[in-house]
Amino acid sequence: MRIAIDAYGGDYAPKEVVLGALEAARELPEEELILVGKVEELSALIEEMGEKIPENLSFYPASQVIRMDESPVAALMAKLDASISVCARLVKEKKADALISAGNTGAVVGAATLFLRNLKGVKRAGIAVPYVTEKKIALLMDAGANIQCRPIHLFQYAHMASVFVEEVWGRKKPQVGLLNIGEEDQKGNEVIREAFRMLQASDLNFVGNVEGQDLTKGLCDIVVSDGFVGNVTLKVSEGVATSVLHMVKREAEKQGLARELAPVMEKLFQLFDFAEYGGAPLLGTKGICLICHGRSDRRAIKNAIKTATRFQHFEVNSKIEALLSNLSVPL
Amino acid sequence: MRIAIDAYGGDYAPKEVVLGALEAARELPEEELILVGKVEELSALIEEMGEKIPENLSFYPASQVIRMDESPVAALMAKLDASISVCARLVKEKKADALISAGNTGAVVGAATLFLRNLKGVKRAGIAVPYVTEKKIALLMDAGANIQCRPIHLFQYAHMASVFVEEVWGRKKPQVGLLNIGEEDQKGNEVIREAFRMLQASDLNFVGNVEGQDLTKGLCDIVVSDGFVGNVTLKVSEGVATSVLHMVKREAEKQGLARELAPVMEKLFQLFDFAEYGGAPLLGTKGICLICHGRSDRRAIKNAIKTATRFQHFEVNSKIEALLSNLSVPL
Repeated sequence: MRIAIDAYGGDYAPKEVVLGALEAARELPEEELILVGKVEELSALIEEMGEKIPENLSFYPASQVIRMDESPVAALMAKLDASISVCARLVKEKKADALISAGNTGAVVGAATLFLRNLKGVKRAGIAVPYVTEKKIALLMDAGANIQCRPIHLFQYAHMASVFVEEVWGRKKPQVGLLNIGEEDQKGNEVIREAFRMLQASDLNFVGNVEGQDLTKGLCDIVVSDGFVGNVTLKVSEGVATSVLHMVKREAEKQGLARELAPVMEKLFQLFDFAEYGGAPLLGTKGICLICHGRSDRRAIKNAIKTATRFQHFEVNSKIEALLSNLSVPL
Repeated sequence: MRIAIDAYGGDYAPKEVVLGALEAARELPEEELILVGKVEELSALIEEMGEKIPENLSFYPASQVIRMDESPVAALMAKLDASISVCARLVKEKKADALISAGNTGAVVGAATLFLRNLKGVKRAGIAVPYVTEKKIALLMDAGANIQCRPIHLFQYAHMASVFVEEVWGRKKPQVGLLNIGEEDQKGNEVIREAFRMLQASDLNFVGNVEGQDLTKGLCDIVVSDGFVGNVTLKVSEGVATSVLHMVKREAEKQGLARELAPVMEKLFQLFDFAEYGGAPLLGTKGICLICHGRSDRRAIKNAIKTATRFQHFEVNSKIEALLSNLSVPL
């Protein structure tokens, strides 16, 4: 398998991306990793760090970088040789099977949408992001690719996410919830209510509406929402968790408990570090596209690379196509 | 001022509601409080608790109760003598200036919408709910009254919330943020983008888009969103804060730190108890309507009663009407 990695994406790029790729290359000698970016700079960096370049790690040139704060569409148009775009083109031209980037999320989604076609039968691709709960990691989809969803989009997200969770995470018949403002069947706007009806009639393990306060309880494996609500939900969750932990830390310091509490805080800060969880697949496009958190360190990058290999190994995309082609709902 | 209090609304009704009303009646001897519900049961309850009925506390009969889990519209239609509806009718008939309920939020909003007209110039009423941040309490509007917002609704919410925060909370020129999926001006769907343009051209202290991860940082006094996103945001925040605190507590117990950490945890559990903050005003209707959290205890009820008196004292409603009538935007 060939995986194109955007060496210039993320807050700690290129160093942490390179280190993650180096570790993954050693642990996965069968896979071919391609670091995309300023080749000379990358080679110099690896040399400087005293690392050897593994045989299964190569470089592919891209002269430009899209910054985290750039407007995605404008940046993609202006920087045709940006590392993100080059990664997507490599997948399009079948020179790579997967792309991984911790860069500007909008630009990653834009590049993937621009260069990769949707899988057969897929109306809209969506970002399926790992979501921390008290019990287990859940998958929240869509986290921001599609902010004007129709019921069929939500319906398809539920199916695509189910395939991913079943195959890549190994959970049989994952429970699917619909993010809504109440538990009753009739809650929500028209789009949500229609999606509810479609999901209830489906073969998925649909558990009904889930409300915001229940997300972190881990009552289901998959939470379906439109991209606007999903994006806000993800960011609010991350913000609240971080704020609460900081406040606990500050208060504990005031009470002279900082040192004793340090291991507890470290564990929880790590648990709620959304960067840890192996990247968020953009489900619905041809090829494999994994979007990593902007704060990704080497471990997060390595985890994403491993997720890509599982995605490929379990043939998630062909299973999604097969599942969608067998659905009897009107598309 | 006369305040109608739904004695049968909330998880701890009627006891905690009655106790909150009794305390408020003693602390605010100038105000007239009316407990609405099953009068004999309420009198018996007060007697049983060994309390005296203050002169400024009276009773008004309502024979039915809408439960927290009932479908609001169906319940309002079926139970014409429900305590929530009777409260709203008292305000409509000018037998009370304000209504307070910790009951089924949908039913409170429904009763208020049914019986109270909107203020002059107001397109849609919205729930303005206190939101806990690291720095201060912010106001999030709308928290669920209006799930299909147009730009003008969001625009008016920003103005109504500004009047409330300036008058009732005493913050001059409060900062207004628009909840969005990115900081850039062009982010979001059409409704959000148009609302952004309108707010930017307004006289409000508009600070631009705010993202989910920044809400708990307390960067602005007011956060504007549609009712679907606002409702999810509020519930997600409450759920994540509670989950994180429980996880800290569990981990601390494992380390044998439970006893030492207890005061810290108690303080933070209380800080993030969204029930504490004096009720959420439904802004935009004639009369005053305060919606309390379902988990409200006596203190929360008393706080809401005090908020109602400030709302009246500072003439929030006439100031909202005056502000909206002077706006030059096309309605």
